[in-house]
Amino acid sequence: MPSYSSLRTKPFLTTLEWSLRPFMVITLTTDFGYRDSFAGIMKGVISRINPDVPVIDLTHGVPPQDVMAGALTLRHSVPYFGDGAIHVVVVDPGVGGSRRPLLIECAGNYFIGPDNGVLSLAVMNKPKLIIQLTNSEYFLQPTGTTFHGRDIFAPAAAHVSRGVPIHAFGHRSSSFIELHVPEVVHHPTGLIGEIIYIDGYGNLFTNIYEHDLTGLPRNDITITVGSTRIQKLVPSYDSVESAKLAAVVNSWGLLEIAQYNGNAQQKCAAKVGDKVVVSGSF
Amino acid sequence: MPSYSSLRTKPFLTTLEWSLRPFMVITLTTDFGYRDSFAGIMKGVISRINPDVPVIDLTHGVPPQDVMAGALTLRHSVPYFGDGAIHVVVVDPGVGGSRRPLLIECAGNYFIGPDNGVLSLAVMNKPKLIIQLTNSEYFLQPTGTTFHGRDIFAPAAAHVSRGVPIHAFGHRSSSFIELHVPEVVHHPTGLIGEIIYIDGYGNLFTNIYEHDLTGLPRNDITITVGSTRIQKLVPSYDSVESAKLAAVVNSWGLLEIAQYNGNAQQKCAAKVGDKVVVSGSF
Amino acid sequence: MPSYSSLRTKPFLTTLEWSLRPFMVITLTTDFGYRDSFAGIMKGVISRINPDVPVIDLTHGVPPQDVMAGALTLRHSVPYFGDGAIHVVVVDPGVGGSRRPLLIECAGNYFIGPDNGVLSLAVMNKPKLIIQLTNSEYFLQPTGTTFHGRDIFAPAAAHVSRGVPIHAFGHRSSSFIELHVPEVVHHPTGLIGEIIYIDGYGNLFTNIYEHDLTGLPRNDITITVGSTRIQKLVPSYDSVESAKLAAVVNSWGLLEIAQYNGNAQQKCAAKVGDKVVVSGSF
Repeated sequence: MPSYSSLRTKPFLTTLEWSLRPFMVITLTTDFGYRDSFAGIMKGVISRINPDVPVIDLTHGVPPQDVMAGALTLRHSVPYFGDGAIHVVVVDPGVGGSRRPLLIECAGNYFIGPDNGVLSLAVMNKPKLIIQLTNSEYFLQPTGTTFHGRDIFAPAAAHVSRGVPIHAFGHRSSSFIELHVPEVVHHPTGLIGEIIYIDGYGNLFTNIYEHDLTGLPRNDITITVGSTRIQKLVPSYDSVESAKLAAVVNSWGLLEIAQYNGNAQQKCAAKVGDKVVVSGSF
Repeated sequence: MPSYSSLRTKPFLTTLEWSLRPFMVITLTTDFGYRDSFAGIMKGVISRINPDVPVIDLTHGVPPQDVMAGALTLRHSVPYFGDGAIHVVVVDPGVGGSRRPLLIECAGNYFIGPDNGVLSLAVMNKPKLIIQLTNSEYFLQPTGTTFHGRDIFAPAAAHVSRGVPIHAFGHRSSSFIELHVPEVVHHPTGLIGEIIYIDGYGNLFTNIYEHDLTGLPRNDITITVGSTRIQKLVPSYDSVESAKLAAVVNSWGLLEIAQYNGNAQQKCAAKVGDKVVVSGSF
Repeated sequence: MPSYSSLRTKPFLTTLEWSLRPFMVITLTTDFGYRDSFAGIMKGVISRINPDVPVIDLTHGVPPQDVMAGALTLRHSVPYFGDGAIHVVVVDPGVGGSRRPLLIECAGNYFIGPDNGVLSLAVMNKPKLIIQLTNSEYFLQPTGTTFHGRDIFAPAAAHVSRGVPIHAFGHRSSSFIELHVPEVVHHPTGLIGEIIYIDGYGNLFTNIYEHDLTGLPRNDITITVGSTRIQKLVPSYDSVESAKLAAVVNSWGLLEIAQYNGNAQQKCAAKVGDKVVVSGSF
């Protein structure tokens, strides 16, 4: 997890000034894509309720209906935002149906979105409060069934940013739907993971954390994806020749297979769910 | 049209404080796409003239030169912004030619862009003022012929946001080019509409408003697009099985054909202009 | 270069008020694309260090690893931002390797990114200061090897915006890697240039500036790209019939080949590096 402690030892404001500063931000993560104005409309709704809160787009490029990709994106983005951030996620194929709209308060942050698991990977501690958004006084009226991002989630986020108490938004709930990242299987001579995410460069993100590789000699392992073999873990992309595949620990802390100056997804014809086998002398 | 009245009954600022707040926003809607920095340049120009005005991207993903798509996007986004919003639209294949650059004030909002119809669907009342942007004192100098978004429209929006009187930007005009959404044809046994917009999910937006369906039993109608038939209108996407087509009333208030967890455009091989026939016992 | 002098003759604030205003902005130019949250994460990092500095996306759509496209984008965007702007560019295939992270102060602006040439075309005067970013007190901890945008460049930009002296970020350097745009070759009967950039519309940007065409009769020249011939330079896209090719001077001041209401890249099957021959009676 990132640390800002060193940065914070150099305050340019006094401690008092920092403590008095409002620090609030809303982030948006959706699968809306970039053709339409859906994300812009959410910002319009937010700005009418709280014109002062900054809104940061995490991405609107989550693959359509890909709840797991949205959940992973959120999980690995949240640590870079301060306490009190309000994270709205709209990857919501069941919008308007029986799935519940939720607001979760956890470790000083707020998570707003559908109860389909998309929030779950970012909620890494026991939540302080889980609220089902039922109080229609905080909905846009009329409330449709196809765009809760606009009608329910954006208004909720904006009202949270203005200080509305969390319990006002609905009734308490005791649980939420949780996704589970596939677990790495450890063997005496190695481990078996899989591709869980592919980024815009075509880099293949596995579920294998750096600590899973503990004890492994980085210069003497074999990483296999389909018919592709890589012989060692390198410190950075340019450790290999241009157009060659490199195995690195990436910005999410995961083992990643990349093509230096290229697209590993295309080169390996890989997809999410493909097995990745690491073998070596542990 | 959306209503915020219920939200506004819960002010967290006093009425006086609200009335004193500056409330101004510029929105951008373009067909620039996301490869280039054209939208970013417009924001640079705006920030040099008025660093304080927030700028919200509606979208830069309007299909290239698709004036109707831009006009529909704007029309269905404007209601979610407050009075006094300044909406800039740059879908402008005739830039630098004979088409006029316009600023329209209507119902407390400002619309800035080329006079090619792209503003017209959002101007839903009689405009208070139509100004042809001719005063080059408010243009970027030198003024080119290929990027009026940068040279004319962004500066105009920024100056409007700073309080420059509207009549200062040029001379009054009495009309502007108006687009017309194709009308629905009503028959004794049903109606014929067409696809007017396709969103990033591949959802097919028709020109059929919910009120066009008045008197129609939602469970007993047939909706036909090409060789595809849907047998009823459902309340939300997940009312059908995964990968099945659903007909819903969407976030624009229109009859929409969608594939649950899929892409209806691809499934139906549909395109803008394709007829949609609704038949039932009215 | 653009001039705002005429705009500035109409201040709505007093001179004193303007001079007291903080005017600071960070721009981001990357090849991250729009699928992932990498750009959003950079904004989170910035907001934790300086919540007050506005951040403007130039684009995140630079073609992956295309350092020249990133450099050209930055060069032609910088003039539209005010003095004191902090421009961060992350087109960085060599991230984490031997290429240096840099901060360049030049003509009142700040340029932050990898030393691979991507900053070089925007640094058009002799830099006041070139700093290699070596002071890890201003890095995010832990500092990875695959995402210096998050770990080094975003923190540096945010700290610059808070007034940290430039020399605090590392040690001085005397040079940086410079890219060179291919030069136009002049002949007695014309000139030979090439396509250096293709925008999202498919417009073909050449390296030929308007001044290269001095003395040329605009109505009597031939512009050849591959097997395509255009017979004159026109003032704007709509000077030709729809779907015809037009040669114009574009918003970067360059000779551009475009298809009116179409995509010249597709029509001409053109790519960056293709020669463009201009002949006429100079």
